[in-house]
Amino acid sequence: MKTIEVTELVLRDAHQSLMATRMAMEDMVAALEDLDKAGFWSLECWGGATYDACIRFLNEDPWERLRTFRKLLPNSRLQMLLRGQNLLGYRHYQDMVVDRFVEKSAENGMDVFRVFDALNDLRNLEQPIAAVKRTGKHAQGTICYTVSPLHTVQGFVDMARKLVEMGCDSICIKDMAALLKPQPASDIVTGIKAACGEKMPVHVHVHATTGVTLVSLMKSIEAGADVVDTAISSLSLGPGHNPTESLVEMLEGTGYTTRLDKARLLKIRDHFARVRPRYGEFLSNITGVDTEIFDSQIPGGMISNMESQLKQQGAAGKMKEVLEEVPRVREVAGFPPLVTPSSQIVGTQAVFNVMMGRYKVLTGEFADLMLGYYGETIGPRDPEVIKLAQEKAGKPPITCRPADMLEPEWDRLRASALALTGCNGSDEDVLTAAMFPQVAPKSVTRGPRTWAAILVPPKGRNPFETRFSTR
Amino acid sequence: MKTIEVTELVLRDAHQSLMATRMAMEDMVAALEDLDKAGFWSLECWGGATYDACIRFLNEDPWERLRTFRKLLPNSRLQMLLRGQNLLGYRHYQDMVVDRFVEKSAENGMDVFRVFDALNDLRNLEQPIAAVKRTGKHAQGTICYTVSPLHTVQGFVDMARKLVEMGCDSICIKDMAALLKPQPASDIVTGIKAACGEKMPVHVHVHATTGVTLVSLMKSIEAGADVVDTAISSLSLGPGHNPTESLVEMLEGTGYTTRLDKARLLKIRDHFARVRPRYGEFLSNITGVDTEIFDSQIPGGMISNMESQLKQQGAAGKMKEVLEEVPRVREVAGFPPLVTPSSQIVGTQAVFNVMMGRYKVLTGEFADLMLGYYGETIGPRDPEVIKLAQEKAGKPPITCRPADMLEPEWDRLRASALALTGCNGSDEDVLTAAMFPQVAPKSVTRGPRTWAAILVPPKGRNPFETRFSTR
Repeated sequence: MKTIEVTELVLRDAHQSLMATRMAMEDMVAALEDLDKAGFWSLECWGGATYDACIRFLNEDPWERLRTFRKLLPNSRLQMLLRGQNLLGYRHYQDMVVDRFVEKSAENGMDVFRVFDALNDLRNLEQPIAAVKRTGKHAQGTICYTVSPLHTVQGFVDMARKLVEMGCDSICIKDMAALLKPQPASDIVTGIKAACGEKMPVHVHVHATTGVTLVSLMKSIEAGADVVDTAISSLSLGPGHNPTESLVEMLEGTGYTTRLDKARLLKIRDHFARVRPRYGEFLSNITGVDTEIFDSQIPGGMISNMESQLKQQGAAGKMKEVLEEVPRVREVAGFPPLVTPSSQIVGTQAVFNVMMGRYKVLTGEFADLMLGYYGETIGPRDPEVIKLAQEKAGKPPITCRPADMLEPEWDRLRASALALTGCNGSDEDVLTAAMFPQVAPKSVTRGPRTWAAILVPPKGRNPFETRFSTR
Repeated sequence: MKTIEVTELVLRDAHQSLMATRMAMEDMVAALEDLDKAGFWSLECWGGATYDACIRFLNEDPWERLRTFRKLLPNSRLQMLLRGQNLLGYRHYQDMVVDRFVEKSAENGMDVFRVFDALNDLRNLEQPIAAVKRTGKHAQGTICYTVSPLHTVQGFVDMARKLVEMGCDSICIKDMAALLKPQPASDIVTGIKAACGEKMPVHVHVHATTGVTLVSLMKSIEAGADVVDTAISSLSLGPGHNPTESLVEMLEGTGYTTRLDKARLLKIRDHFARVRPRYGEFLSNITGVDTEIFDSQIPGGMISNMESQLKQQGAAGKMKEVLEEVPRVREVAGFPPLVTPSSQIVGTQAVFNVMMGRYKVLTGEFADLMLGYYGETIGPRDPEVIKLAQEKAGKPPITCRPADMLEPEWDRLRASALALTGCNGSDEDVLTAAMFPQVAPKSVTRGPRTWAAILVPPKGRNPFETRFSTR
């Protein structure tokens, strides 16, 4: 009987996927004791878009949120999603900033760093993974799963082997668009175990959007996966994840089991079922499945982004054309996986192509992508469009690791942060200002919270009131 | 490469499970050409609660609906769900009525008869299965899957072998409450194939309620199942079924495939996505999963029934007690599967037990169940409660096949039907009056429709108007 370990996603990816990352800390606190004692391998609770949402919408200091988790989840591994050299921002940061961010995250309580790069460019993972290793914490190397004429099982397995050579403690297959079908799931896990050794832990992260991925988890487990990601049922399915309780029940009678406490799972479920309606205005209205994305390979979140861009331009009727343009733009750009930020970059360029003519106007980000400033893509990029990008951006294409182009910037970032009202001078505050230069200056100091932005206080709540405190 | 065949449920069980069986024929007609040509093994489209809903709520003659399907689905096997000796009503009918119903169904176009008995009492299946065989149509013997201390894989396999000996053309494992987990699914299919021969077709019908059953379908397929039941995605999930499109995609790259036309599936999906909002008031509000039913074994539909019974008695707060009482009542009654009508009978008695004290008041149906008038149960029934039932009902327990207690009744049923306004004298009309003696007399004749009840005309529609006609 093999025990399958589980990472619970409700504190991060579940509400990021289902309610625009809007869940406030005060709506999580009451469930933490049960989450801490239910028997999860880890609790994903930080990173991704949560840092941004904390300061932009929720009047929370993300570092304070992390310290609260650390305090109230004493028995749990805390896990975060880290966008490689981008950290939690939207550009590449110089290595010293990356080091500082990882050190501070570890110091404030983070245990497991799931590190990915949107282009699967290993060079963008080297620095953050080395930084995690230096802290003694768990470095999880991540493969962004996608489908294209160039992506193969062998390619993903090769990437896993290289991640292990870089010192990763485990490998994650990250299927952000629910494209991972049962057979490739089985093949990739089998391949990784053969290439990296049976003892190298393999984690599988899938979304539920297409309806097939609980089967993919089953086949992954049969192929040797050690840890799978799920979300408690009351915040699951649709563009979110498979329900934790269903995973537990699914395994009954097989040669696999979990060590999850079903009674605690029900309490956690009931808590988030009560919380969910408070976020009605942000809730995804997708409750069924979408299998068309197997053909378009466009994640659900990306479609809603493009829809709103088209509407702003009074061209909502052009959606079909845009959907057909996305795969062409992706091919021109060398078949990147579609995940933050490549999904937004490709999607926006597809909208521009349809509205103004193909590559008549390039976005700055798309030009950077074409010129190599986000890293290397699996396929060659279109030379004609590279030429246009060079004209637009006024800089040459590069082939080196993008962060190698950056000058040391920590001292400059620190100085500009210190000049802002409300900065308490800590490295944590400097990192907030560095990653969110537009948002941080608008935030103010109030009581124990240093970067508590009040741009959009949570509906129906007094932003000056907290229902929990850890200090 | 093995081709897995698919039965599409959208025309019957999908809307029975998700919108209280309310879908009107006029909302199906536009999708029939695509359904007919998409490559399904069969289209389940009649029986279950649809007959009742047609005359009670929809102003439709169920026989006319069947003839319309036959005409507009010329390339398809039409499939129905038949409640054994109960036909589509709620009591046992004498054998001649059973024969007549099956003959008329075949004559009007039915191809595949899925025949089940709520107690899995094979004696209640003999007459209807023999009747189907005489018409030359497909007789599918059905095992109601349930979980109890007495139900075993071997027991289900033995039942399958007996059904084959009775002449069934195929075996269906019917999991009406989504309790069938992957491992038992695999074990039962493997057992049936070993006991009945590889060539005996095995069909697997599961609901989606608990979130695990697409995995169960995958394991059934790997174990040798030939046909699986799904519903088009826009009318799937929750208390309904797994999405047809997800099944198709799930199999990619495995040794299995379907012969379904994906382009037609998308058109069918879009049609029912447009239709669905018209039935908003009847739509199930369950969109997530419920895994607690693995412990309570109470199907979702039964819970909502009991809730409304409790509310009527001003005792909504007693729900928890009732939920705990159901398994006890089920044990007293010999562990019947919980499916129409046993689910209602057990559930109502549990409500009575909680409200008035245990077995202080017995319903007539529960007394009949205890006395054997619905058939034999897998376990012994409680002798104390049998004694109470005998007092209440004023009749002795029986051990024979229940229908053997019935006198020939066709002529009497025919005579009373002919006395009703609107009866056109056909056997079809006599069967309507026989199965729904309370509803049929209130219906009126209008134009081509003979038993067109107008108790509750479909919202927003003129009941005197039809948007389709086959005559």
